[in-house]
Parts: sequence; structure tokens; C-alpha cells
Amino acid sequence: MATLIDLSHPLEHGQPNFAYDPKISVIAHNTVTSIGYNITQVSFSSHQGTHLDAPFHFFDDGKTVDQIPLDQFYGPATLVDLAPGSFLKAKTPLTVEMFKPHAKHFRRGAKIIYRTGWSRKFDSPEFFSDYPTLTLEAARWIASRRIGLLGMDTPTPSTEWKECHHILLKRGVEIVIVEGLKNLEKLPVHFTFMGFPLNLKGRDGAPIRAVALTK
Amino acid sequence: MATLIDLSHPLEHGQPNFAYDPKISVIAHNTVTSIGYNITQVSFSSHQGTHLDAPFHFFDDGKTVDQIPLDQFYGPATLVDLAPGSFLKAKTPLTVEMFKPHAKHFRRGAKIIYRTGWSRKFDSPEFFSDYPTLTLEAARWIASRRIGLLGMDTPTPSTEWKECHHILLKRGVEIVIVEGLKNLEKLPVHFTFMGFPLNLKGRDGAPIRAVALTK
Repeated sequence: MATLIDLSHPLEHGQPNFAYDPKISVIAHNTVTSIGYNITQVSFSSHQGTHLDAPFHFFDDGKTVDQIPLDQFYGPATLVDLAPGSFLKAKTPLTVEMFKPHAKHFRRGAKIIYRTGWSRKFDSPEFFSDYPTLTLEAARWIASRRIGLLGMDTPTPSTEWKECHHILLKRGVEIVIVEGLKNLEKLPVHFTFMGFPLNLKGRDGAPIRAVALTK
Repeated sequence: MATLIDLSHPLEHGQPNFAYDPKISVIAHNTVTSIGYNITQVSFSSHQGTHLDAPFHFFDDGKTVDQIPLDQFYGPATLVDLAPGSFLKAKTPLTVEMFKPHAKHFRRGAKIIYRTGWSRKFDSPEFFSDYPTLTLEAARWIASRRIGLLGMDTPTPSTEWKECHHILLKRGVEIVIVEGLKNLEKLPVHFTFMGFPLNLKGRDGAPIRAVALTK
């Protein structure tokens, strides 16, 4: 029996994000009482909550979310658990040595989700400041393997955000980055990942409902 | 070889929707030039473009998008093509007689997508006014079959919108309604539907990236 596992944090009015990003508002625009039906006005950053980055996020000549082939958002995926049954401490550097034991999974086009256990901090102030952080050496190693998608339970891969995104999103690498996943402790090593972005024409990213299919 | 077919219209700044609904804005909040990366502020109705209705859309005590089990958004689906190789004229009533030849597919929990050909009008002013429209008798017949999901290429099932939504969304029926699909002419009769809503806590609907998997 196939099982679907929700990998997405809820979206709610006023949730925090990074300092310079647009904030989320979720407003009841009309209601059953006012007009006969409930309808909502949602405003958010293209990078709110569980979301996806396209190369255009950091490169003006990079692909936008609507230009990426759908099979980069769907298919067989592998969990790389960096802290099985536990979690990494705040600000832990994620090094090449931590990924190398899983090297066989880092194949061309592969979808890799790594788990640090940081999603447990989603409601804490330190979620956006103290997350375990990919070293640039590890980012370069991952980029060199030419995987297709890299997901994680931290709000962004690295405190060295500009350099890291440049390494992962640059032309010829163009890894889809999925940030802010949850429930990774419920995943087997192999599963099917589904995380299609909204069809936002010409834009840099989108919140997604990421779901795993296991069997 | 599995094929993914995009069933979702693009989302763009200023696109039309129904008169009383919040409008869509897609604004470059910062850019590579201003701050080092492109990031977007998106504001839209929970019912913009290709989207999904939860029972809470019309019933205050109905399920919200985050309360519906994930398997109602994913799984085997059937195309009911009401105009094979062609399209229905504006304002065509969709009657029970048009659905009955497909009755065997309308089983408990089934996911049914019907095609009228109206998605070709997506960029025309009449898209939101002159669409083929489900009769209430047909809506009652569909509700009586206890299917799980009903999708269509029109912006809403019926001009008698309040009565029709009440029939489809009421307690004990609770059909997930997926509105504004496209590319239905590319679908085989049987396919896998994927259309998970954003995890909007406590709300009535959400734009989705609906995708079909065929093999």
C-alpha cells in the first residue's frame, strides 16, 4: 500500500522568514456571511516556508520556475540522513566528509534530500539564524556530481548564501533547490518525491506542497 | 516511458478572475542588481487560475485544504471528454445525459476530470462569463456517485455557482473540485492525477500546479 507523507510546513499569516523577504499575509477577503463563500487573499514571498529555488533566483539569465522540465520536480529520490535517529546541533558545518559515505546516490540527475533534524526548530526564532550549514567545499562536491535536485530541512543550504546558491544554480549545474522540508525522519532511504512549483511565469521560486510517496 | 503533462495555466500579474475575488499581483521585490538575488512578492486569491476548492469554501464547518487527506489530491484518474476532438459551444448546459455514457467511471472515491474544450478561451474576456455549465441535475447525479475529485477546464463548474458548490461540497459528499485545468486534450482516458494544494492552514482553496502522469 502506497503512503503519502507531507513534507511541507503549514503556511500561516505572519510567519517569519528572512529579514529582507516579503512577509506572508493570509486574509479572509470574503466569508459565507458576507457574500456566500469563504475566499482568501494570500500574499507571500516566492521563498516562503517550504519552497523551491530556480536558477533565476540568483542569475538573471537562469531558468525560471515555469521553464524547468516537470521531471525535475517528480521522481525517484534518496534520503541522506546526516543524523539518523537524532539531530545535528545548531550551526553544525555540513562537510564533504559527511556526504561522501552516501556518494553512490549522488548520480547525474539524482534527487537528494538531506536531513539534519533542523525542522524541529521551525517555530523557534533561531530557525532562520542558527541552522546547520553546508560548507562551500561540500556544495562544490555536490555540484560536481551533477545531481538534479537538492532538498533539505533547513531554511536555506548555507549561511554563505550567495556563494552557495551560485555554486548550485549556475549554468551547467542548475540544481533545483528545495528548502524548508519537514517530516524527513519519516522517510525511507528511497521514495518518490513530488514538489511541483506554482506555474509563476518568469519568476525565481515558489512555495510548494512537497509530498513523498513510499511503498 | 512515463510522461508528465502540465494541466496548469500560467500565473501572471493582473490576470482576470471573477469580479469579487482578490486580484493577482506578481511584483519583483528585489533583484540581482538591488540585493544580489531575484525575489518576488506574490498576492492572489485562493481561487486564482488553476486551483482547488475545499468544503470550507462554502461551509464554515467544512474541511479546509490542510485537513483533506493527501490521497484525495493524488492517484488514478479518468478523463471524461464531452467533446472529443472538438469543443462545446459557449454556455452549453452539461446534462446528466452527457455524463451517463461514462457512468462506469463514476465510482466511490474516483477522480474524474471532464473536458469541454473551454480552456482555449483562457485569454479571452468570455472565459469567466460564457463557459459551459453543469446543470444542477448533473451535479446531483455526480454527487450521488460519491466520487472523490471532480476537475474541469472551465473556471467554475456552473453559473448556478452557489447551488452547485453546495451540492458538491456538502457534508457527506465533500468532492474536491479542481477548476481551470488546461491541456486536457493531451490526456488519455486513464492517467495519474497530481494536484496537491499549498498547505494553507485553515483556508478554503489554493492555486495548484496540476500535473498528469501517463504511461
